[in-house]
Amino acid sequence: MALDDTARAELAAQRAETYSTRRATVPALEDVLYQALPVLDHGFVRVIDYMGDDAAIVQAARVSYGKGTKKTREDEGLIRYLMRHRHTTPFEMCEIKFHIKLPIFVARQWIRHRMANVNEYSARYSIMDREFYIPAPDQLAAQSTHNRQGRGDVLQGAEAARVLELLRDDSIRAYDHYEEMLNERQDGGVIDAERTGLARELARMNLPLNFYTQWYWKIDLHNLFHFLNVRADSHAQYEIRVYAELMLDLIQKWVPLAFGAFRDYRMGGVELSAQGIAVVKRMLAGESVTEANSTMSAREWRELMTTLGRG
Amino acid sequence: MALDDTARAELAAQRAETYSTRRATVPALEDVLYQALPVLDHGFVRVIDYMGDDAAIVQAARVSYGKGTKKTREDEGLIRYLMRHRHTTPFEMCEIKFHIKLPIFVARQWIRHRMANVNEYSARYSIMDREFYIPAPDQLAAQSTHNRQGRGDVLQGAEAARVLELLRDDSIRAYDHYEEMLNERQDGGVIDAERTGLARELARMNLPLNFYTQWYWKIDLHNLFHFLNVRADSHAQYEIRVYAELMLDLIQKWVPLAFGAFRDYRMGGVELSAQGIAVVKRMLAGESVTEANSTMSAREWRELMTTLGRG
Amino acid sequence: MALDDTARAELAAQRAETYSTRRATVPALEDVLYQALPVLDHGFVRVIDYMGDDAAIVQAARVSYGKGTKKTREDEGLIRYLMRHRHTTPFEMCEIKFHIKLPIFVARQWIRHRMANVNEYSARYSIMDREFYIPAPDQLAAQSTHNRQGRGDVLQGAEAARVLELLRDDSIRAYDHYEEMLNERQDGGVIDAERTGLARELARMNLPLNFYTQWYWKIDLHNLFHFLNVRADSHAQYEIRVYAELMLDLIQKWVPLAFGAFRDYRMGGVELSAQGIAVVKRMLAGESVTEANSTMSAREWRELMTTLGRG
Amino acid sequence: MALDDTARAELAAQRAETYSTRRATVPALEDVLYQALPVLDHGFVRVIDYMGDDAAIVQAARVSYGKGTKKTREDEGLIRYLMRHRHTTPFEMCEIKFHIKLPIFVARQWIRHRMANVNEYSARYSIMDREFYIPAPDQLAAQSTHNRQGRGDVLQGAEAARVLELLRDDSIRAYDHYEEMLNERQDGGVIDAERTGLARELARMNLPLNFYTQWYWKIDLHNLFHFLNVRADSHAQYEIRVYAELMLDLIQKWVPLAFGAFRDYRMGGVELSAQGIAVVKRMLAGESVTEANSTMSAREWRELMTTLGRG
Repeated sequence: MALDDTARAELAAQRAETYSTRRATVPALEDVLYQALPVLDHGFVRVIDYMGDDAAIVQAARVSYGKGTKKTREDEGLIRYLMRHRHTTPFEMCEIKFHIKLPIFVARQWIRHRMANVNEYSARYSIMDREFYIPAPDQLAAQSTHNRQGRGDVLQGAEAARVLELLRDDSIRAYDHYEEMLNERQDGGVIDAERTGLARELARMNLPLNFYTQWYWKIDLHNLFHFLNVRADSHAQYEIRVYAELMLDLIQKWVPLAFGAFRDYRMGGVELSAQGIAVVKRMLAGESVTEANSTMSAREWRELMTTLGRG
Repeated sequence: MALDDTARAELAAQRAETYSTRRATVPALEDVLYQALPVLDHGFVRVIDYMGDDAAIVQAARVSYGKGTKKTREDEGLIRYLMRHRHTTPFEMCEIKFHIKLPIFVARQWIRHRMANVNEYSARYSIMDREFYIPAPDQLAAQSTHNRQGRGDVLQGAEAARVLELLRDDSIRAYDHYEEMLNERQDGGVIDAERTGLARELARMNLPLNFYTQWYWKIDLHNLFHFLNVRADSHAQYEIRVYAELMLDLIQKWVPLAFGAFRDYRMGGVELSAQGIAVVKRMLAGESVTEANSTMSAREWRELMTTLGRG
Repeated sequence: MALDDTARAELAAQRAETYSTRRATVPALEDVLYQALPVLDHGFVRVIDYMGDDAAIVQAARVSYGKGTKKTREDEGLIRYLMRHRHTTPFEMCEIKFHIKLPIFVARQWIRHRMANVNEYSARYSIMDREFYIPAPDQLAAQSTHNRQGRGDVLQGAEAARVLELLRDDSIRAYDHYEEMLNERQDGGVIDAERTGLARELARMNLPLNFYTQWYWKIDLHNLFHFLNVRADSHAQYEIRVYAELMLDLIQKWVPLAFGAFRDYRMGGVELSAQGIAVVKRMLAGESVTEANSTMSAREWRELMTTLGRG
Repeated sequence: MALDDTARAELAAQRAETYSTRRATVPALEDVLYQALPVLDHGFVRVIDYMGDDAAIVQAARVSYGKGTKKTREDEGLIRYLMRHRHTTPFEMCEIKFHIKLPIFVARQWIRHRMANVNEYSARYSIMDREFYIPAPDQLAAQSTHNRQGRGDVLQGAEAARVLELLRDDSIRAYDHYEEMLNERQDGGVIDAERTGLARELARMNLPLNFYTQWYWKIDLHNLFHFLNVRADSHAQYEIRVYAELMLDLIQKWVPLAFGAFRDYRMGGVELSAQGIAVVKRMLAGESVTEANSTMSAREWRELMTTLGRG
């Protein structure tokens, strides 16, 4: 079902009610609960529920009877220590649940993260929405010339126009034919009373990968951090990265201390190989190290120089 | 740390505070939140947090914008349908977190359930409590004569007394020696200023498997049902079954509709093999079926007869 | 890459070589190793590697030093006992690896089984094959009238012809436009030297869900049985069921004893609810039980009668 | 069962047989297959089976029809690229199975690695061996004074002797009482015909954590690398580290290219935080960076200096 007026009313009704609880509660996240935060042309991310907060991480790490927190400064130190030394289990003690609308080709990348719970809208059972993704003109990029799985410059002029036309026309035609094969419209109306209509589980195969699907997706904070580290990375495809970036904002609202540690140690951190740290030590000792005397391959040397800002 | 007065005060402080939330809330579970519900002689189960309720299962199954619930009767029908046909993912959308104190030999069975999150009290880092499990006299059972992994009759008289004496004396001595090797008492007091003390990670190896440990344990409802189905079963060892039984009560408070479906389809349900259902059909058709004409092995026949109440 | 002559030569070369090993080996499975066994119009299943055999299940269950097997009859009894009582871990000790070619809409169902290892052909990195699934005429089914996610009668005449025409034309056009947007053919040839070509990760979004993808997929026997139980079931969509059915044959070659137990206790077995087994007991006692006096809902009663062959 | 003559004969019989296979085979690992490689005073590691080799990683990464390998140099480059960029799924395509004997307190750390398959010897079903771990004198370490979960200097003289005496005496007494409670010896002999004997599942609770257990343990190469990275680390407890170190040797025999990449990028590599890499860049630019002008906490600065060899 699309985010139409009925959906908006249901969503607003859920936002309007409040309850009393003894559980750990995060007002900054409550503020945006249930809201459909827009992504791409028809997608969204909605926070449906959450369990725990920064203190819950500390509490689990200490296996404590109460909240387990001491001063904010001490809690932050412990959380950063846990992140730095990859003591991951306390981060698993926080959990979050989203409702997400996303193109199918994005969903296919997303689902590769196995440590999550998923309920997807069923195209065997229901009729898909007439909603498909068309890239904004500034995202219509050429194949990268140096990276086999990346993007290069943005297409211009006639070529760009032609691509947009093809994507749009094929999407519209695919959906028209989908309805024709079903012999039914999404509102349930029959098209031709003389015909039977193809089964939904078959007709859907005509829809291209840019059509939107939606799902409920639930994950613990440790596995979410892993997802975000991979998908908010500059090597991730733009269309999934925008979801990850929006979720980073949400996580910062939810668990600001854990988010800070994640940002410093994972998102902003770097990994150096045994050879890489040896090169750094030699450089710091004043030695002039070159690719030739580094024992590294050309590719590994190049990546190291980029990491050290000498690329 | 044991459940002493300090712990009880921390726990009470957490129970005393309430917050406002937009999240799904279950008053019957809020009532017992944080309470240490006793199990065995020194163990307990405490609910620390939860996510979702019966409606959250329906909401995820429908991938809906609002709560997704209709009439209670319809919701119940859907939940029972999901349980009956093992559509398990909507049940994964509820999550619960416990703080549990349990003997180590119970913890060793418990941890085999991998789809959960765990933070255990560290005996490398901290000193263990002087708390060990001694079975109540009515649980001091002999080895079963017909089931290699079960219990038979309860020991009596001198033999029972001797077992209790051995268990108690060995536990006390083991802990005394643990402290002596550490050269430190749990309150941090040094025993002999002339000695160094053995590392905690080594000294703990002297403690027997009946000593208590504790952990935070978080799991989704689907995997919890699986745990309970195995561990609340009559074949489970008594010492883990009592934990599972207490948790059944908690789950009934939390998600009564899902609990009802679980009770009817899993806990109380039975599985028949292809041969078993064939036998039942023949019997229902009035045929006299015997082990000899059943094509089943003696053992399979015996188990089928037990299932059918003809054991 | 499609299964062309180059691929067939590579595959044959791999089949031609043999090695000496001390590992458990299953000649019946070795016979078909690496072969591309056809499924649907362009799909296949290839066994790439396997670990263990029936004896390995027994060996792990006994935690033995040698093979752990005794007489075949005893091994079979143990394996059936393990299956009957859902002692699943010994079955996890066998592992199998497949190379599979399958339509994307099938891959989307398949990937929901999380306890497996997957490497999929990357459409960000490489160009997709011009291969798409068109149902055989006898699979062109209408929507079921009584089951919202099933198939009914086969479409006939003009309606069937029209569906096939739509599916085929839209697939061909989608791939033509995919190549046009890429400005490149799968053989690497550039179409128009004046144009830049859209990035692969974007162009792929124009392909419909009936296009074929391929992956390496590795799973342990316990989780494979679960997959097969769900996907070889009559309620599974035909297009994934045919893969599951072919795999059943392969599993029977590999671990015939475990397969027999799986067939009898899972595939051919039934589950009765607490209410269902109560009804059966009353019937066996000669009582006339009806829906009205059964305490079951209409739907549950109907499903029970079907199970008992009285539907 | 202990590794007695019967066990050695079974093991030798398994080593004596060879079979013909088309599967990827690694002679260097075949050489040690089934052998009980000793660890600690009574423990061992045995490789029982394996699936795949270095080429299988390349094959899966390329989703190829044949072996997928090109020149060794190219394969190595690809494997190192996969490791460097944490493209972990191709490493999941190799699998290995071990039979391991280890003290229970080691098993309790080990089992925390959830992504593995385990069958443990059952002390509900069978009688435990009279085998317990006593540290060698050079491992009898004091509690570390600066690290709450580490070891300091080795105990000397009377204190060391006393610890060894306590550990040994308590272990012997615990086992004697275990047998007395069971009223049965491990060979099955009844001790006192007048008594009934306590159930095995209860009697075991008297055994301390230094007793040996054993299990079959199966894991994929990616998750094994994670296990080894944590457990072969200098911060791991010595008693699990010796198992991990022995396994490193085995993995080097099995997949030398993947092992090399793992050694360079994981075991020997380092991680720098956003603040850490900023400090390195400033140092390389010739700036004099101190804790005070680094924006890092005292602890983080100290750990960075250690990493850079300036500790």
